[in-house]
Amino acid sequence: MIHSSAIVSPDAQLGKNIIIGPYSIIHENVSIGEGTEIGSHCEIGLPTPLADNKELVIGKQSLIRSHSIFYAGSRFGDRLITGHRVSVRELTIAGENLQIGTLCDIQGNCEIGNYVRMHSNVHVGKHSKVGNFVWIFPYVVLTNDPHPPSSVMKGVSIEDYVALSTMSVILPGVTIRRGTLVGAHSLVSKDTNMNVLVAGNPAKEICEASKIRLQDGSRMPAYPWRRHFHHGYPIDVVEDWNAEFQDNEVRGVKK
Amino acid sequence: MIHSSAIVSPDAQLGKNIIIGPYSIIHENVSIGEGTEIGSHCEIGLPTPLADNKELVIGKQSLIRSHSIFYAGSRFGDRLITGHRVSVRELTIAGENLQIGTLCDIQGNCEIGNYVRMHSNVHVGKHSKVGNFVWIFPYVVLTNDPHPPSSVMKGVSIEDYVALSTMSVILPGVTIRRGTLVGAHSLVSKDTNMNVLVAGNPAKEICEASKIRLQDGSRMPAYPWRRHFHHGYPIDVVEDWNAEFQDNEVRGVKK
Amino acid sequence: MIHSSAIVSPDAQLGKNIIIGPYSIIHENVSIGEGTEIGSHCEIGLPTPLADNKELVIGKQSLIRSHSIFYAGSRFGDRLITGHRVSVRELTIAGENLQIGTLCDIQGNCEIGNYVRMHSNVHVGKHSKVGNFVWIFPYVVLTNDPHPPSSVMKGVSIEDYVALSTMSVILPGVTIRRGTLVGAHSLVSKDTNMNVLVAGNPAKEICEASKIRLQDGSRMPAYPWRRHFHHGYPIDVVEDWNAEFQDNEVRGVKK
Repeated sequence: MIHSSAIVSPDAQLGKNIIIGPYSIIHENVSIGEGTEIGSHCEIGLPTPLADNKELVIGKQSLIRSHSIFYAGSRFGDRLITGHRVSVRELTIAGENLQIGTLCDIQGNCEIGNYVRMHSNVHVGKHSKVGNFVWIFPYVVLTNDPHPPSSVMKGVSIEDYVALSTMSVILPGVTIRRGTLVGAHSLVSKDTNMNVLVAGNPAKEICEASKIRLQDGSRMPAYPWRRHFHHGYPIDVVEDWNAEFQDNEVRGVKK
Repeated sequence: MIHSSAIVSPDAQLGKNIIIGPYSIIHENVSIGEGTEIGSHCEIGLPTPLADNKELVIGKQSLIRSHSIFYAGSRFGDRLITGHRVSVRELTIAGENLQIGTLCDIQGNCEIGNYVRMHSNVHVGKHSKVGNFVWIFPYVVLTNDPHPPSSVMKGVSIEDYVALSTMSVILPGVTIRRGTLVGAHSLVSKDTNMNVLVAGNPAKEICEASKIRLQDGSRMPAYPWRRHFHHGYPIDVVEDWNAEFQDNEVRGVKK
Repeated sequence: MIHSSAIVSPDAQLGKNIIIGPYSIIHENVSIGEGTEIGSHCEIGLPTPLADNKELVIGKQSLIRSHSIFYAGSRFGDRLITGHRVSVRELTIAGENLQIGTLCDIQGNCEIGNYVRMHSNVHVGKHSKVGNFVWIFPYVVLTNDPHPPSSVMKGVSIEDYVALSTMSVILPGVTIRRGTLVGAHSLVSKDTNMNVLVAGNPAKEICEASKIRLQDGSRMPAYPWRRHFHHGYPIDVVEDWNAEFQDNEVRGVKK
């Protein structure tokens, strides 16, 4: 399952049933979990002194699409899925079920939770902290330098269930709180509240996110999105979400 | 004309005089018209269940530059020209003489007319409809989800002769009407009129596009652009445009 | 040091101690200085009639990372460093110590000074002029067409020590004067003053850049940045900067 044109270091640790596509390169300091597929034209485990001699760990059942580049020194849980031409620098520590879209550029030295989904062309600056079940849409930038260029690095924090819409910039040190939606083409310059919509340049709080209605005819609240959007999440996660909202309704709690 | 390092499926249908560059991969479910050139490091016809078993069709006299990726299931007319590292997903249906710039990311399930020119790094969301003679400049995003993430998909419509300037976002379901110019760095949240300039975040109608004057010393109207900009269009198209404006001038019609 | 899978034209002029990675292509009209390393999957020196038969010149001690594409007809001083998947078209004339980040797209026909640093995904339009010691951050676009599409090209000018923050667009013909900071997500539509902060859509002058304080506890001015940020610059450059500010302080001059 390793294409004859691929260049694989004899020191790379490969699990069972690994597929490696044509013209891909696997360096020595790499551990790839079983059942993982790596597309063509990739370079996996590029050495760098910044990796601190740490290896690159890719979890099981992952899929790295073609033309992607991963440096040594990062660690990904199981079921990582990437688009094409993804770039990931060293010391990125990510949970399970991460999706990284085509052309994403992850600068390293960052933490990413479980079930995070980045669409195409997301830029994650160093020192970013991204929680669980976060969505990040195309051309979003997580910045880190409050007065560029400088040596002061203030990463952003993105809490659970946040959605960052396309072409938004999160300024250094800002926290986007749990469940909040950042509207498209926004510049977020200060911490947000939970479960709200912020939008604009600079972004202002517009309303509670739950005021936004689903445009599917139901007029149900579109947020929290986990109440209605379950595509691709495993059954146990969805059951937890269903229970959460059922309980709240029984108890008369608005979420 | 097929480089010895290229990997070409024996089931791919190749016209005459095809050039395929080094380290490129052509999958089986592909039909490439005669006289087409494919650069190095490409992957053409990636299989996906979402392609519905449809083949990828690339028209005659096309040029796909290096590091580009096309999935199975799309169809392009003749004389497609792409930049480098283009990504095109399944079920993209495009007309003739399409130009797709370097780093463009076409998400599939979309329709694109004839003589459309996308500059670098354009993001075309699923369910977009792009007319004829449309220009799209760098970092423009055509979105589709009115409350991300959700299962509601409302593609945008871009009518003929529209120009979308750099770093603009078109929100879901919006129609940009014929001949309209969207200014740089705009967020367009509602349908526009025809032949106007809209700009800003959120975008507002500024004026009729014809009020914008050419900065070439002539002070002629810069729009409709087809009156003065003919670079790269075939003679019969330009003659139609010339006739259109001559007739209008004879009849005293302002366009 | 040339990988066996690389394709190198016998007419390419290679200095001593050149490294060329797997699956890379070096065309004939190329001159590469000694000590330069070229990563995997690159294409260097693509021929184009627009290059006017000029060769591509890469200076000594340079590093071009993987998946990058350079056309013939450009010229780079020594110690060029690029990220991955950089695209550079013909007739780009650049000084020494240039850094070009991952996914940058340099359209050619432009001039770039010494010690310029572009972060990821910068788009440099044709006819841009970039001075020395300039910083350009992700998703910045230097435009050139005042009424797209047209044949009128008005490149932007970026003077020495300028910093352009992420996701900013500089409109055609605009000059950003020496030492000025453009805030994130700005649209700059007219020439700026020197040593100021401009920000917003459209950008307005906010204050003198020296009013911005370093967020490192010192409360020192963050600009001019060369007073405090020396990372990666050679000793003689830093000594000049130190002398400049020492002299000013002795003479009581505020910079």
